[in-house]
Amino acid sequence: MIKIVVAGFNGRMGSTATKMVLANEAFQLVGVLDPTETKTNLNELAEYGQVDVPIFTEKEALLISQPDVWIDFTMPEFALTHTQFALEHGIRPVVGTTGFSEADVAFLTKLSREKETGGLIAPNFAIGAVLMMEFSKKAAKFFPDVEIIELHHDKKLDAPSGTAIKTAEMISEVRNPKQQGNPDEVETLAGARGADYEGMRIHSVRLPGLIAHQQVQFGGEGEGLTIRHDSFDRSSFMGGVALGCKEVMKRNELIYGLENLL
Amino acid sequence: MIKIVVAGFNGRMGSTATKMVLANEAFQLVGVLDPTETKTNLNELAEYGQVDVPIFTEKEALLISQPDVWIDFTMPEFALTHTQFALEHGIRPVVGTTGFSEADVAFLTKLSREKETGGLIAPNFAIGAVLMMEFSKKAAKFFPDVEIIELHHDKKLDAPSGTAIKTAEMISEVRNPKQQGNPDEVETLAGARGADYEGMRIHSVRLPGLIAHQQVQFGGEGEGLTIRHDSFDRSSFMGGVALGCKEVMKRNELIYGLENLL
Amino acid sequence: MIKIVVAGFNGRMGSTATKMVLANEAFQLVGVLDPTETKTNLNELAEYGQVDVPIFTEKEALLISQPDVWIDFTMPEFALTHTQFALEHGIRPVVGTTGFSEADVAFLTKLSREKETGGLIAPNFAIGAVLMMEFSKKAAKFFPDVEIIELHHDKKLDAPSGTAIKTAEMISEVRNPKQQGNPDEVETLAGARGADYEGMRIHSVRLPGLIAHQQVQFGGEGEGLTIRHDSFDRSSFMGGVALGCKEVMKRNELIYGLENLL
Amino acid sequence: MIKIVVAGFNGRMGSTATKMVLANEAFQLVGVLDPTETKTNLNELAEYGQVDVPIFTEKEALLISQPDVWIDFTMPEFALTHTQFALEHGIRPVVGTTGFSEADVAFLTKLSREKETGGLIAPNFAIGAVLMMEFSKKAAKFFPDVEIIELHHDKKLDAPSGTAIKTAEMISEVRNPKQQGNPDEVETLAGARGADYEGMRIHSVRLPGLIAHQQVQFGGEGEGLTIRHDSFDRSSFMGGVALGCKEVMKRNELIYGLENLL
Repeated sequence: MIKIVVAGFNGRMGSTATKMVLANEAFQLVGVLDPTETKTNLNELAEYGQVDVPIFTEKEALLISQPDVWIDFTMPEFALTHTQFALEHGIRPVVGTTGFSEADVAFLTKLSREKETGGLIAPNFAIGAVLMMEFSKKAAKFFPDVEIIELHHDKKLDAPSGTAIKTAEMISEVRNPKQQGNPDEVETLAGARGADYEGMRIHSVRLPGLIAHQQVQFGGEGEGLTIRHDSFDRSSFMGGVALGCKEVMKRNELIYGLENLL
Repeated sequence: MIKIVVAGFNGRMGSTATKMVLANEAFQLVGVLDPTETKTNLNELAEYGQVDVPIFTEKEALLISQPDVWIDFTMPEFALTHTQFALEHGIRPVVGTTGFSEADVAFLTKLSREKETGGLIAPNFAIGAVLMMEFSKKAAKFFPDVEIIELHHDKKLDAPSGTAIKTAEMISEVRNPKQQGNPDEVETLAGARGADYEGMRIHSVRLPGLIAHQQVQFGGEGEGLTIRHDSFDRSSFMGGVALGCKEVMKRNELIYGLENLL
Repeated sequence: MIKIVVAGFNGRMGSTATKMVLANEAFQLVGVLDPTETKTNLNELAEYGQVDVPIFTEKEALLISQPDVWIDFTMPEFALTHTQFALEHGIRPVVGTTGFSEADVAFLTKLSREKETGGLIAPNFAIGAVLMMEFSKKAAKFFPDVEIIELHHDKKLDAPSGTAIKTAEMISEVRNPKQQGNPDEVETLAGARGADYEGMRIHSVRLPGLIAHQQVQFGGEGEGLTIRHDSFDRSSFMGGVALGCKEVMKRNELIYGLENLL
Repeated sequence: MIKIVVAGFNGRMGSTATKMVLANEAFQLVGVLDPTETKTNLNELAEYGQVDVPIFTEKEALLISQPDVWIDFTMPEFALTHTQFALEHGIRPVVGTTGFSEADVAFLTKLSREKETGGLIAPNFAIGAVLMMEFSKKAAKFFPDVEIIELHHDKKLDAPSGTAIKTAEMISEVRNPKQQGNPDEVETLAGARGADYEGMRIHSVRLPGLIAHQQVQFGGEGEGLTIRHDSFDRSSFMGGVALGCKEVMKRNELIYGLENLL
């Protein structure tokens, strides 16, 4: 059994992670952390049911529970301090954040090597989404003609989605910039051909009912290859968190990006 | 057996129609027309094999074969004369053209009623495409949030496709103009949200390997409805031509648009 | 404003319907019914917030609120009594049930005509699903080659789904039974070609993560037509309930099946 | 320029390969082989146009053209002799066949090492199909719940397709056998849940209009991942043949399977 603590357990992701740890037979939840919480045990909070897990308000107090893994879904400024603290005490961090600088990651990686302590920092824990991006990058080596269609609910503010941009960036590492479509192509309605990222086209669909979906479509002589990810709810991230908790036990340095565990 | 002639049998569509008529047991091909052809029988042309079908170079000469139906895939200027000629002689025209004016159609319809002769003029003979448009128009009454994704080979010059525009026009007959997506939506890459047609979005994908495909996607509270047509080759038009030949036998006036036969 | 009561407001569907009525500006919720409820006003139940809607435990007591429409999501035996009661008092019923016999429906329809009172009984209120079935029935007239792929979460017990069977039944009303595929086709692994319904094939996919999806796929010479419905959550039924409440105000007899309102 | 010969140039695949080599600027076609051909140069065959490529009827005669690469699309018995002959003469073989035994491949691989000559034997040259299988195998490590839907034209005799079986075999190398779906699941129509391959389900759709398509669908908690390949015509194989011709120039032993070049 891997002994785990969850920092930021009151947030949306932290609360989902807490329930995942409680439900997974390979894991034992030995504590949760939130400096503003007034209750002292998870069993005082109706949503967690009959459990016995101490709530800590200071990270130093957590050490008494001797965790193997420290899951962190706090704000970036806390997450940075927490990750350093965990590594210094030989606890393996599994951190979900997009907020660390390259210097932060370099510093923490160096520290992890000194302490010979595994860890994972991941901007995206959805295994399916990470595989979609990895596969797209590999396919683009052989199929330089590619368009990305991402589809989200109609409350979403930005277009294209962060995942679509990240996918295009990863593809551009292996694909030479190339204008796609007919060189004499004409848009009779502006925008029909979508956004242009080094000649790749990105299309953002927004409709009520949709959740979060992305389709990466490759075309070649006489054939097509399509890689699609559908995210139906937040629980899709938890498979990646669980995998991370298991994998950091086998490593002795910090890894950045779930794709480097897969 | 319905006796049929094909005008414009040397063109791409005419040649496909000629073969369809020869292959269909409900039809008898009694003649073909092309003013520039020097051969006098289809059996002199290798691609048609062992048949016995006279080739005519003048429309008046065709009358000797006493056709029931006149399939026409010629240029608009000839097609107009031909359709009038057919109706005047009690032959039912089945005409594939986008080139007639509203006045032309009104004139021919009036003539067909006087002659009590059925007929069909259709800009699009692909039954699947016509059904996609009809269904989309009906669905839009209940789902005003709709985006069109059309996908074609990368040699195509115009975006959006004619079918996508026609679909949007048909939807707009039943849908009040409505801006879709989040009102505060921001395109971080221009064009991501596609072309805007009265608030509906149209996305044009162009990739090698693709042929001609369109997906009309509706979204509502907690659900989605998608109607997709895939056109793999020109033969997809022939089902509509065959249907037209049968239906005009049962009618006594000209109809415009395959959808009005379905 | 249409004045509405909801019978069976404590059930899953009834509770969702109650919230839909509260949220829709065209509707006024004037009462809810549940014979076992001990609270007397919806505002005593946390999930409904600041409202003032009396809870009734007897149907006769409801009359004081003078409703126009009676939404019913109770068990069939109650629903039958309720629908008769509503019609007799000139209240338009909107009833979600699969449990009425043909004789029940005939009796209620006759009563509705005598009372000149509109009403709706529907086994399925998801507009998207109903349209999918209607469109499939229409398409099958022209494309007799059709396969149904239905995809659900992996907790589902029965295969094929009820909607898939209902779709096949509707298609069979317009399609002559026809064995599809190559007449000499061989299954090297039993079941590969799916279930056989008058020669149409039905395939049931079950995977974690999926919710409720169905794709009806037609094929013809050189083309394909696909109609797909995705149901992401129970709220998808509420569009049909809202439509029903509006439409029954314009009618003076009972209608069976949402498709007959569309 | 890589100098290439094509053996079996009169067959369907060989003829397509011959045209691909002629059209590719990186390649020079220096000869073709067919023991039954009576013409002596490709320019005597109308379909190849204005070229100057000798036709050989004996493999020994081919050596005069000093090819770098030997493309072979002949019957397995000839292909085996040809591959050995090519390797012995330092010509790199690129062979499309499913007909070699494991012993054949082992013998030829050993010979290639002795001769330090690269080569490729591949049962499938469609890069998209090979990537689909590779990606599916990788995804199955993380998503053990998977169903395969393969869709082909309705003339196809066998179900499931060879590619579907091959995909299932590759997935089974990394996935523990596992019964999917609800353990108490009931088929109310036999075959609905498809073919069972170690608990994975395979569904075979057959419709006119379709060509050759396969969708591998993975499901996990709250998410789905789908990998789809569409093969629209035989030309889809030629990208893999061209890639093979280039890659064998850089290698000094025989490789089995296009996936091992990707």
